[in-house]
Amino acid sequence: MKVVIVGGVAAGPKAASKIIRLNPEADVTIVEKDKFLSYAGCGLPYYISGEVKEQKELMCTPVGVVRDPVFFRKVKNVHVLTETAAKEIDRTGKRLRVQKLTDQQEQWLDYDKLVLATGADPIMPPLPGHDLENIFTLHGVHDAEAIKALLAEDKAWDVVIIGGGLIGIEITEALTHKGCRVTIVEKFPQIFRMLDWEMAKLVALHMETKGVKILTGTEVKAFKGQNKVKEVVTDKSTLPADVVIMSVGVRPQVQLAQAAGLDIGAWKAIKVNAQMQTSDPDIYAAGDCVECLDRITGKACYMPMGSTANKQGRVAANNICGHADAFPGVLGSTICKVFDYAVARTGLTESAAKEMGKEVVSVMAPAPDRAHFMSDAKPLLLKLVVDKENRKLLGAQATGPGDADKRMDVAAMALMSGWTVDQLANADLCYAPPYAPAMDNIITAANVARNKLDGFMEGVAAQEVHQMLEEKKEFIFLDVRSPAEYEEVRLPESTLIPLGTLRGRLKELPKDMEIITFCRISLRGYEAALILKAAGYQKVRVMDGGVLMWPYEKIK
Amino acid sequence: MKVVIVGGVAAGPKAASKIIRLNPEADVTIVEKDKFLSYAGCGLPYYISGEVKEQKELMCTPVGVVRDPVFFRKVKNVHVLTETAAKEIDRTGKRLRVQKLTDQQEQWLDYDKLVLATGADPIMPPLPGHDLENIFTLHGVHDAEAIKALLAEDKAWDVVIIGGGLIGIEITEALTHKGCRVTIVEKFPQIFRMLDWEMAKLVALHMETKGVKILTGTEVKAFKGQNKVKEVVTDKSTLPADVVIMSVGVRPQVQLAQAAGLDIGAWKAIKVNAQMQTSDPDIYAAGDCVECLDRITGKACYMPMGSTANKQGRVAANNICGHADAFPGVLGSTICKVFDYAVARTGLTESAAKEMGKEVVSVMAPAPDRAHFMSDAKPLLLKLVVDKENRKLLGAQATGPGDADKRMDVAAMALMSGWTVDQLANADLCYAPPYAPAMDNIITAANVARNKLDGFMEGVAAQEVHQMLEEKKEFIFLDVRSPAEYEEVRLPESTLIPLGTLRGRLKELPKDMEIITFCRISLRGYEAALILKAAGYQKVRVMDGGVLMWPYEKIK
Repeated sequence: MKVVIVGGVAAGPKAASKIIRLNPEADVTIVEKDKFLSYAGCGLPYYISGEVKEQKELMCTPVGVVRDPVFFRKVKNVHVLTETAAKEIDRTGKRLRVQKLTDQQEQWLDYDKLVLATGADPIMPPLPGHDLENIFTLHGVHDAEAIKALLAEDKAWDVVIIGGGLIGIEITEALTHKGCRVTIVEKFPQIFRMLDWEMAKLVALHMETKGVKILTGTEVKAFKGQNKVKEVVTDKSTLPADVVIMSVGVRPQVQLAQAAGLDIGAWKAIKVNAQMQTSDPDIYAAGDCVECLDRITGKACYMPMGSTANKQGRVAANNICGHADAFPGVLGSTICKVFDYAVARTGLTESAAKEMGKEVVSVMAPAPDRAHFMSDAKPLLLKLVVDKENRKLLGAQATGPGDADKRMDVAAMALMSGWTVDQLANADLCYAPPYAPAMDNIITAANVARNKLDGFMEGVAAQEVHQMLEEKKEFIFLDVRSPAEYEEVRLPESTLIPLGTLRGRLKELPKDMEIITFCRISLRGYEAALILKAAGYQKVRVMDGGVLMWPYEKIK
Repeated sequence: MKVVIVGGVAAGPKAASKIIRLNPEADVTIVEKDKFLSYAGCGLPYYISGEVKEQKELMCTPVGVVRDPVFFRKVKNVHVLTETAAKEIDRTGKRLRVQKLTDQQEQWLDYDKLVLATGADPIMPPLPGHDLENIFTLHGVHDAEAIKALLAEDKAWDVVIIGGGLIGIEITEALTHKGCRVTIVEKFPQIFRMLDWEMAKLVALHMETKGVKILTGTEVKAFKGQNKVKEVVTDKSTLPADVVIMSVGVRPQVQLAQAAGLDIGAWKAIKVNAQMQTSDPDIYAAGDCVECLDRITGKACYMPMGSTANKQGRVAANNICGHADAFPGVLGSTICKVFDYAVARTGLTESAAKEMGKEVVSVMAPAPDRAHFMSDAKPLLLKLVVDKENRKLLGAQATGPGDADKRMDVAAMALMSGWTVDQLANADLCYAPPYAPAMDNIITAANVARNKLDGFMEGVAAQEVHQMLEEKKEFIFLDVRSPAEYEEVRLPESTLIPLGTLRGRLKELPKDMEIITFCRISLRGYEAALILKAAGYQKVRVMDGGVLMWPYEKIK
């Protein structure tokens, strides 16, 4: 069996290795346009930061063996053609035309099965001046090398990152540590559009404390400079820029597939079935060039991820070798590190769920990520989005210095099984003080969702409260924390009545005015609301997420 | 509605708080025999170590409010009777006789619903000398205070811990750091019986590097000393002992329930249904005093855990207040920290599964816990146990310095949903280099299980190899790592042929002898086995877990 694989980064080498393992007789060839093969693209920000010392490390196996063509040949028995472009698929003849980029030599490679793992290209909008020097994307080893070389110079650079998505933000920390002045320009009203607005705002506030300037709702119009970029012109102002990093997204590489007449989906990525087969049963595709099934919506989506690429490469290989396997789709599980915060999401955001017409209950649950008496406990800011109709979890988001990845993976598992928050609330997760609170953060969050679904707790989002404050609406913004906490930091227009004194001070609160309670995490706020309701107050709501998740300025 | 709750540590206060939230009119009383209420018992080892500075912190809410009777009264509107023993349930009269321990005053408390959250008592075997001074259990604040006071003295104590279970081992680190010479005496052939032998052995080897002496298969016969304990006499030797900590397990507190004629189960704990109701529908029970449903076996089990107690308290409260709720049972999810290692388990061990008559496939998967090129990547030693018949996960274990809790929680979620390893292998978990490898450890482990189930990989346990070596069986123990790795550490009787050179050196390997391949983590070992099989070698197996999980001495 002859298998030709186009693309040598993630899905391609994975498929190649697996095919050879299943079928040592197979004749497998990888075609890769670059000099490099099988490198960890997600590691590039850490190569730039110096966390990863040598480029080689990104191309090694976990035990330090470099995955170069010799390795593939000797260990895996896979042929590798680097610096070779795939030019044309002849589906009838079942062959692929390739061209060696160093000498333009062409040849046809016959295949029984073809795998397209062509990846994606960073989007470079054709703005005036976009071809000036020092405007980079961060997509390959070459970009990383170039940025790294620049930063090695002893200068405090002005760096403008265009697009507040994952790739751009992942290197912000490295750049800041190197002394660069970093500005992020985002045309949408928030960075991290994988999150809801207020979660993204909490991350932005953290980044701002580290000196990063974030300009949302700002559109780039042009780049200026002579040879080298000097300025970024936006619709609001002009920014100094020694270096520009474009990270406005990627576009699936589908020219080869498209020219061959393979089906391309609504997301402009290659359509595949669960077996990773394209519309031609002898051509498979995997990784950043394909569309995925969104397991929550049941619709096609485009979510390029290294983890997904690896899984898809394996599924394609299994099917090619006659072992039935199916890729079940994705949840959009995503995580990244931004200074001291993790930023993570799985499933639908509240806004995406609402756009789909779903009635949702959302929960903001800030809490220490392990037993609160452990000295290394850190706040974790968690959000759950739940379907009001069937009580099923729809999505989860987390940020903060606390352990976010564990809770997001638990949420992902719940989403994949279609769990309700009632099921999630009784999950038997591992507990010991160094690892979790007795009631894990996600279990507490699930219980808050149940309280809301069952009508025991009426929440109000910080955004709504903020708007009420802006509009000078009449209501009591009741802080039930301790005087010491209030002294340290407080929210605008708030009234302090510590929870322990509330029962005795009810006289101070008029019964006809709305009361919005809160505390640090809004657990005491919830207790206060219950006390008020039991005392006959009708209009009482609890502000979701309390002081810890207030996404606006606080009074200090 | 009058609710009386016996027990004020975990399940009791949880039930009380939830009942009041659901029904602010309810008249709720907690009866607690101790002076202390609602303290985090699991935090005691960290109080002894000094990680938790003040006892008070164990009794606080996450924001530092002490949960004392005044707090329960003022904030929660719950009555609390401390230093009060529950003596007798009059089920016909629906009342409870209690006695104030300070003045022996008795009274009857009427109830509509009674909740038993009586917890468990540490087992103190009646060995000769067991009542000598400085022999402790570690169950309550008093024990912790006493041990802490002793350790405050400027002396290097000989401490003998009897029972290699969670509680005893959790304080080993604290004791060692304080300069104590710690010996653990365990009558069974391994410590940590929640794990399989080889996983427990890996933990024991780590503890030994920290100076802890571990005596397995050793039974304590008596304690000797005048007033204070001086020696522990075992069936093998006599050990010096200034302090003895008994941690041979706990026994559910069921006298009150038993005397009232409530059903007691095979585990000598109170029988409850999923609603946490005892055999008397007006009496509920929750926490360490009840039996649980084991979700894997479908049988009753006894697994006292603070996390479970809290969940059960909430379920009982919901049902008491007329809101249907059910506790779905447990998986035995457990974690603890031992020096630099996490030790965790969920579901069945291999030995437990085999005892149940199941045919299993087990997987040992050691790997870095995040992208291997990140400087803070640490080894995680993972084991999965899979049902051969239906490919479902049965259990998972993890140890090592790497991030174990996340993977165990993911495994727990998979277990609760009855997932196969095929489902687990395609879970959409969060990936970024600081948090996980592109193929998460548990996904790789699931894939290894699939390889074994599908017959592509034949594994052999380190124990079997060790036995073959002991018995001087003829086989080739083929190490396919690099010469540098071999130089650093190697396994006995092993032959080195680095993977990259294997295809060229096949002549050196006779075809008629069994070959057992391995490497650091046995991924290269697997590749080697495939090369050998493709070259016509018939008897080839891969040693599970490689050098990293070899639970015996290595040659350095």
